[in-house]
Amino acid sequence: MKRVMNSGQTLVAESLAGFVAAHEDLVAFGGGGRFLRRRALKPGKVALISGGGGGHEPLHGGFIGTGMLDAACTGHIFTSPTPDQILAAMDETDTGAGCLLVVKNYDGDVMNFEMAAEMAAPRHRIDMVVVEDDAAYGPSVRSRGRRGVAGTIVVEKILGAAAERGDDLAALKTLGEGLSPRLRSMGVALRGVTVPDNARETFALGSDEMEIGVGIHGEPGLSRQRLASADEIVRLICAPILDQLPVAEGLHPLLIVNGFGGTPPIELHLAYGLARRFLEAEGVMPRRSLVGTFVTSLDMAGFSVTLALLTEEEFALWCAPVATPVLAW
Amino acid sequence: MKRVMNSGQTLVAESLAGFVAAHEDLVAFGGGGRFLRRRALKPGKVALISGGGGGHEPLHGGFIGTGMLDAACTGHIFTSPTPDQILAAMDETDTGAGCLLVVKNYDGDVMNFEMAAEMAAPRHRIDMVVVEDDAAYGPSVRSRGRRGVAGTIVVEKILGAAAERGDDLAALKTLGEGLSPRLRSMGVALRGVTVPDNARETFALGSDEMEIGVGIHGEPGLSRQRLASADEIVRLICAPILDQLPVAEGLHPLLIVNGFGGTPPIELHLAYGLARRFLEAEGVMPRRSLVGTFVTSLDMAGFSVTLALLTEEEFALWCAPVATPVLAW
Repeated sequence: MKRVMNSGQTLVAESLAGFVAAHEDLVAFGGGGRFLRRRALKPGKVALISGGGGGHEPLHGGFIGTGMLDAACTGHIFTSPTPDQILAAMDETDTGAGCLLVVKNYDGDVMNFEMAAEMAAPRHRIDMVVVEDDAAYGPSVRSRGRRGVAGTIVVEKILGAAAERGDDLAALKTLGEGLSPRLRSMGVALRGVTVPDNARETFALGSDEMEIGVGIHGEPGLSRQRLASADEIVRLICAPILDQLPVAEGLHPLLIVNGFGGTPPIELHLAYGLARRFLEAEGVMPRRSLVGTFVTSLDMAGFSVTLALLTEEEFALWCAPVATPVLAW
Repeated sequence: MKRVMNSGQTLVAESLAGFVAAHEDLVAFGGGGRFLRRRALKPGKVALISGGGGGHEPLHGGFIGTGMLDAACTGHIFTSPTPDQILAAMDETDTGAGCLLVVKNYDGDVMNFEMAAEMAAPRHRIDMVVVEDDAAYGPSVRSRGRRGVAGTIVVEKILGAAAERGDDLAALKTLGEGLSPRLRSMGVALRGVTVPDNARETFALGSDEMEIGVGIHGEPGLSRQRLASADEIVRLICAPILDQLPVAEGLHPLLIVNGFGGTPPIELHLAYGLARRFLEAEGVMPRRSLVGTFVTSLDMAGFSVTLALLTEEEFALWCAPVATPVLAW
């Protein structure tokens, strides 16, 4: 797989430098370049800090700003950030109300964020919300339980809005844990992904194959199948999502179609239209939607569908103003 | 090349349906589904109408809304919209101040927009601005003169803001033609593109090749070279752009890095950082920037750089409020 880069070693760092330069009104480097931070912190607000491996851009840096994250720590490609990065982010963005860490459920990420939290315990109040929205729950080399995938941005947006209005650490933790059972995602890959400096694809797909339930690190999914029509693909990923969600009156469906990096807008909008039709036929009427490239696996071709069933309060928080490089309303 | 679609015949129509569903607050189908239009027209404003082949999404529909386009006409993949689509758009969105057609410089597009303008002449005041920003000016099967590529969104934004403030048809035409010599783009492809229902790639690249000066229809570019470092690629496309622009004090540089559909954000931000560094070393300091996937060639891998040197007035129009599915500030 060919890439626009100078070398695999410098890909993440050079990309982050370009990202900060492009969004210098909102985002800055912190800790001598070890993490990205909100340029203007809001004193007295709980600091929302996330992070994970590189290769998932615009996650997490693209969601730094008013009403969302205060800091994002990025590791090498598909590699957790180190505890010292996370610690530096806590030291620089905690303005007195403590830090909430939003962590995708991968063993490496959870371990490093927990380690940072322990190291920081003497001087910061800290809590953690682990995102585990992947409906393709199967054996994984990377995590116990469900993986955290594109639903992460739902957690970051809702907790970010709550932090912005002044919720304290305990309230944010309760809000995050309450949302978890009503948030599910599932993805499909049409083309695998190659990690730079590791020449071979982490998984390879034949020219007529697709991978259902794929993760965001090029790890294989639940099943490999013959490439199907978009209608069939959408059914294969939306049905398990619906099965796992407590559909009920009074909840507000939020539908997200997320590209994995190599899939163009024309296909993402097509998938969105079909996903919406599928859900509506099942009686689930999305009240808000988002279509775009938010949580990637380098240039993997494919997409994921995320469905969140939001309470009245969560829905209001989703709709609350936000000003970040990616989401702005 | 694998795609998320039901069939090549329905790809564009199903994608547009999904697009309208995702953005129903801003965009609607007009003319019985033949074009996309701004949901709420502004009476007395010149109607800004654009269009072109499918396969370039989010162009043009993504730029419909307050401060930008009133209508977008989409043809089949890489095929001009028909005069009757354009005519229907004029009939439905002209609220009395006439129509300005924004057309990318391809023979088919120019011909069909001109034909529509002739047919509409008895009942509409009409003028046209042709976008021709491609710095890779060479022989082409599709156009005489420079092609219209990603710089199209600069023209649509600036003219859209001017129309929104009440400029008349003649003023908009003058503004558009004045901007043209100060707007240039150039692109590079790392992987070719396959048109659906036409199985073979329109151009194929070897696993160590890149195409410099590529167009947005998978047409070959100026030269084929061995895949180079990002630094070298950026130099190869930014140097010709600078050569063709009248760099001068008092003009405000706008820098855009645009993905062609198959290139992920991590690479686009890296390219942006290098392009900015290259320009700054040449004494050109971007005052505004935009990085993302705006003008695509299906899922072609690669990107383009656009540089516009804006007058004080054009710069203010670029910065003026806009509310469309893609640009919003």
